[in-house]
Amino acid sequence: MTTRQSDYLPGLLRNLPGPDEAAGDAVARRQARLTKPPGSLGMLEEAVGWLARWQRREMPRLDQVDVVIFAGNHGVTAQGVSPYPAEVTAQMVGNFQAGGAAINQIATAVGATLSVVPLMLDRPTADFTEAPAMTPEEFRSAVAAGFDAVVPGTDLLCLGEMGIGNTTAAAAMAAALFGGAGSDWAGRGTGLDAAGVAHKAAVVDRALALHAKALDDPWEVARCLGGRETAAILGAVLAARRHSVPVLLDGFVCSAAAAAAAKLLPGGLDHTMVGHCSAESGHRRLLRELGRPGLLDLDMRLGEASGATLAVSILRAAVAIHAGMATFAEAGVADGS
Amino acid sequence: MTTRQSDYLPGLLRNLPGPDEAAGDAVARRQARLTKPPGSLGMLEEAVGWLARWQRREMPRLDQVDVVIFAGNHGVTAQGVSPYPAEVTAQMVGNFQAGGAAINQIATAVGATLSVVPLMLDRPTADFTEAPAMTPEEFRSAVAAGFDAVVPGTDLLCLGEMGIGNTTAAAAMAAALFGGAGSDWAGRGTGLDAAGVAHKAAVVDRALALHAKALDDPWEVARCLGGRETAAILGAVLAARRHSVPVLLDGFVCSAAAAAAAKLLPGGLDHTMVGHCSAESGHRRLLRELGRPGLLDLDMRLGEASGATLAVSILRAAVAIHAGMATFAEAGVADGS
Repeated sequence: MTTRQSDYLPGLLRNLPGPDEAAGDAVARRQARLTKPPGSLGMLEEAVGWLARWQRREMPRLDQVDVVIFAGNHGVTAQGVSPYPAEVTAQMVGNFQAGGAAINQIATAVGATLSVVPLMLDRPTADFTEAPAMTPEEFRSAVAAGFDAVVPGTDLLCLGEMGIGNTTAAAAMAAALFGGAGSDWAGRGTGLDAAGVAHKAAVVDRALALHAKALDDPWEVARCLGGRETAAILGAVLAARRHSVPVLLDGFVCSAAAAAAAKLLPGGLDHTMVGHCSAESGHRRLLRELGRPGLLDLDMRLGEASGATLAVSILRAAVAIHAGMATFAEAGVADGS
Repeated sequence: MTTRQSDYLPGLLRNLPGPDEAAGDAVARRQARLTKPPGSLGMLEEAVGWLARWQRREMPRLDQVDVVIFAGNHGVTAQGVSPYPAEVTAQMVGNFQAGGAAINQIATAVGATLSVVPLMLDRPTADFTEAPAMTPEEFRSAVAAGFDAVVPGTDLLCLGEMGIGNTTAAAAMAAALFGGAGSDWAGRGTGLDAAGVAHKAAVVDRALALHAKALDDPWEVARCLGGRETAAILGAVLAARRHSVPVLLDGFVCSAAAAAAAKLLPGGLDHTMVGHCSAESGHRRLLRELGRPGLLDLDMRLGEASGATLAVSILRAAVAIHAGMATFAEAGVADGS
């Protein structure tokens, strides 16, 4: 007897523990006693409190930081939405596995473990201007692959993706979830010119029209317009919530993939922060919609978890400060009160 | 026979090598061949080129990263411009030396060596609402202390400061160098309320009026309105230029101290980047005047080189990416052209 689609997906939204507010309060009390003016470490203080609440630990730690990149291929590449051929998805997966990509260097620099999960790269999704990108069963499998990729006990999870054509899928999902037309969400991706961006926006608009009746259901948005890798990210975000693992999201595609969780569940992204606000134009708009700033803003637009993983260095410093600093009393420093 | 003040200071502006443009060009050529869309690493790519030009090396390195904090006391604290007593400067120097401050944890986290240079903490500068902050000889000594603190061969220098009252000095120097009144530059510092900020702005305005005749000379701005630690930062910035050492500047006080170099010499801060744009209100305005963005923007306002040193983690990732990534040819990835 197999689990039915209709049971499996809503089940992912059950048994999701909330934050440990007592741990967050303990962080705030300790921060107030450390040898610095109150609040002077800004987002570093907020980030430590966030880690504490979602790790459910008064003294958060970053001993095991996992980076997971999901990769998928997209039928919509038939519409000429990327300057790179679809073969590059598999080639870049090989590059990740060989250690030659940007994310390999960043993961090593910040002390994180990298996993790459290719999802049926020889079976692209359907062209979503003609049909739903995935069948219900294909979608369920991709979500499950993401859910299963999260290891309980991980201290921090960075999510990312690789998939030629997937900024088009992300633009379509963002428009379906938050409104607006293709032109509000389509950007240059890996390097389109203005005419290419306009064509991409029109492709998104066609898809939105074709699937209009299904798009009031966030699961259907992810199935009809997303890819296997974006479905997997959604599954991983929900698994992280289940296992009390804080998540750093990456750029536009990753955030659009995760955004369905915010529509499925009130506060569904509260256990996530966004590592970097991408130069891909839709990301800033999407982060406004989600009410989540990026920790970094360095004009990057690479994907492959690069922005999420770079931000680990900021969180490591924040955790080290929280654990290692002296209090006013310990240091014999007057506290200004 | 001793060097005269009138000879010593202009001498610091001579024998300053420019950037190695060939090294910068080599970085750009290699970046174009790495397995990522052109320009997709944004400021990381710019930062590697900047390091290469100023280290004068095609493959920049960060083996020796030095953090230097200069500390000084300010007579203007007599005007009630800080919620903390002046004794905290020496107490925090002790905290730095004992390893208990935020900067100790950040320096360890990013693999940098920390030095602290207290500058006659028992001899505060004069209250600059009544007299020039330093005599010419005191100023020359402080600049020289900063100049001598820079070790030739350092790969990257992070500069910072500690000095109760020094956001008032920074506001006065910024106003003198770039125009505007005290209210344009005075901020909350370590935690003033609105009335405290207004008082601080009035203190700055009195100083600007008292020293008006001297303020067309950037050296005199630094002598009449600055502190020993800000004079030392100016000396260190010039020494770094002399020795081809790239510099990361910290927040408002550090940037205001360094700003005189931009007025003394065209492109006088080209060998510097700003690690973090401070929440201290004058910093964003000052960075606009200097045409230099901050690498990070995390709502921090601590000083003590914290923002500069935190940004080292970003530069480390940028250098690792540049050195370690595969090219399109090496990885067998189609390059989209």
